[in-house]
Amino acid sequence: MNTNRQWVLAKRPHGMVTRDNFEYRESPIPSISDGEVLVRNLYLSFDPTQRGWMEDRESYLPPVGLGEVMRAGSVGQIAESRHADFKVGDLVQTTGGWQDFVAVRPGMGWPGLNKLPPGVTPPMALGVLGVTGLTAYWGLLDLGQPKPGETVLVSGAAGATGSIAGQIARIKGCRVVGIAGGADKCRWLTDVARFDAVIDYKNENVDDRIRALCPDRVDVFFDNVGGSILEAALNHINMRARVVLCGGISAYNATTPQPGPVNLMNLVIMRARMEGFIVIDYMNRSQQAVTDLLGWIKSGELVHQEDVQEGFENIPDTLNRLFTGRNVGKQLLKLAEPS
Amino acid sequence: MNTNRQWVLAKRPHGMVTRDNFEYRESPIPSISDGEVLVRNLYLSFDPTQRGWMEDRESYLPPVGLGEVMRAGSVGQIAESRHADFKVGDLVQTTGGWQDFVAVRPGMGWPGLNKLPPGVTPPMALGVLGVTGLTAYWGLLDLGQPKPGETVLVSGAAGATGSIAGQIARIKGCRVVGIAGGADKCRWLTDVARFDAVIDYKNENVDDRIRALCPDRVDVFFDNVGGSILEAALNHINMRARVVLCGGISAYNATTPQPGPVNLMNLVIMRARMEGFIVIDYMNRSQQAVTDLLGWIKSGELVHQEDVQEGFENIPDTLNRLFTGRNVGKQLLKLAEPS
Repeated sequence: MNTNRQWVLAKRPHGMVTRDNFEYRESPIPSISDGEVLVRNLYLSFDPTQRGWMEDRESYLPPVGLGEVMRAGSVGQIAESRHADFKVGDLVQTTGGWQDFVAVRPGMGWPGLNKLPPGVTPPMALGVLGVTGLTAYWGLLDLGQPKPGETVLVSGAAGATGSIAGQIARIKGCRVVGIAGGADKCRWLTDVARFDAVIDYKNENVDDRIRALCPDRVDVFFDNVGGSILEAALNHINMRARVVLCGGISAYNATTPQPGPVNLMNLVIMRARMEGFIVIDYMNRSQQAVTDLLGWIKSGELVHQEDVQEGFENIPDTLNRLFTGRNVGKQLLKLAEPS
Repeated sequence: MNTNRQWVLAKRPHGMVTRDNFEYRESPIPSISDGEVLVRNLYLSFDPTQRGWMEDRESYLPPVGLGEVMRAGSVGQIAESRHADFKVGDLVQTTGGWQDFVAVRPGMGWPGLNKLPPGVTPPMALGVLGVTGLTAYWGLLDLGQPKPGETVLVSGAAGATGSIAGQIARIKGCRVVGIAGGADKCRWLTDVARFDAVIDYKNENVDDRIRALCPDRVDVFFDNVGGSILEAALNHINMRARVVLCGGISAYNATTPQPGPVNLMNLVIMRARMEGFIVIDYMNRSQQAVTDLLGWIKSGELVHQEDVQEGFENIPDTLNRLFTGRNVGKQLLKLAEPS
């Protein structure tokens, strides 16, 4: 392989992302300087937040520029090294983007370049032990502050982050209710992830079902969805509830501004809090989270699943799987196996 | 005076409150039992939250029932006492409602019956040192947690609570920007209450003016208004901003559900928090707040103003002054002077 296949951002999206938003390009494999490594991407991570990176607006990271390779987390393998800490063949987690090869200078800040610990597979490094798992861990524990016996409601519960957040709540002794779309996802949540109850938003009235399934009201709402789901949850918050704003996927592809919930005053009546966060801020405490998560995986308390697509040509379409709800767990795409 | 004049809730409002929502009634002056006192109301307090008490819905206090005297805070004078701690002539703060006389059994929980400290006038007891001032104090300090040098934005800034909240922020070393309606209120805020800057929402583009007047963005937003004002403020919050939800007067008379802000995701991007509170929860710490507030008044750092209407027949219309923005400072109505 002499060329570096790339998908670059060609046109900013309006509504759902299409293939037209990207342009396929073949570039030379980058050459590296002293202190750099060349990483060959093996697995790409797909996350709802990437949709926001495509917009030309101020956010927690700068927008991907037009003509730039689409930004994405990845696990790769060191193909060439001019850095003492990395040798050819090492598996690493980085932000490799939608391309085969990326030159990285370690130590240049988030998300940097991190070797995979022994026993951690690439899918785990991008999912349950990656940004996804850390988002669930810090959002639930630091902002949600769940106490044993409390009721925790999770939207996007079958998604990569929601499924981990709900299970951590269960591990912490909470009653956990998930909201997900479709019978298969709901069954997985109760039977495999051992949520206490689940609401199928595609087939049930979410407001009614929260009322029925959360008789003691909702102490922590971990929200990945926003919109009408957030509004329904706010109807049932308990005194001093914590609403963890992790994401708002319901509006990510909206072409007009989406109104917020009509019932924000419930935050006043219930003396409740709604708070947002970005996992980047917790990166210096990752070790604690990874240790806990890995321990729970090993003890069987925490399950995780990945949806692994394949084929460089399928990268743009794979992003949309997140927004059509087709993904089952963490959305990944495999470019190659480790050599 | 042998009769107890009363305004009772006759019909629940739809939209703005009208005189038809109440019925005038004359009842016998209540007789009291051992352990009770008879209070003659001198001043009634009008607060936006009273509009919510008229609705038949779950809230932080039960709704006022149809046929019941409209609930309102008041300062009165003990007209008759069968309780050792109170003697005839004592000035007290209680929840006397829209009537001349009320029988109270002290020690029955919030808001109980509290003697006015020496030197505290009835308007002060209901305003800057009453629920209004305490709301500003605890909302700003406990939830807002302003730090010296930070920018604090206050909506409803010329109102009873907003004006106190903004001045406390100034006392704590913050740059304070107020949002109010009309040139007179704005002038009072800058010239008398010494806000650093002010936005006239009736004559200026709030979003543009926040951007211009808060170049370092908004660290604390103390919101009494909600709606489009909240949305504009959310566009300009700083990292780790605190949005203190004190009230949402813009929607209190709405006849249809009012959508929330389109930009709640800014809470995520900016790792910010939006939190509601009810001053009732702070009543056991009132002494600390009153001591601080009184100290600032005496030192000239804190000014307050009251809008005192008169006439029992004008009680229902006086409530609406809050919603048409006619009140200048704390809205009161005087029934009688202390004897």
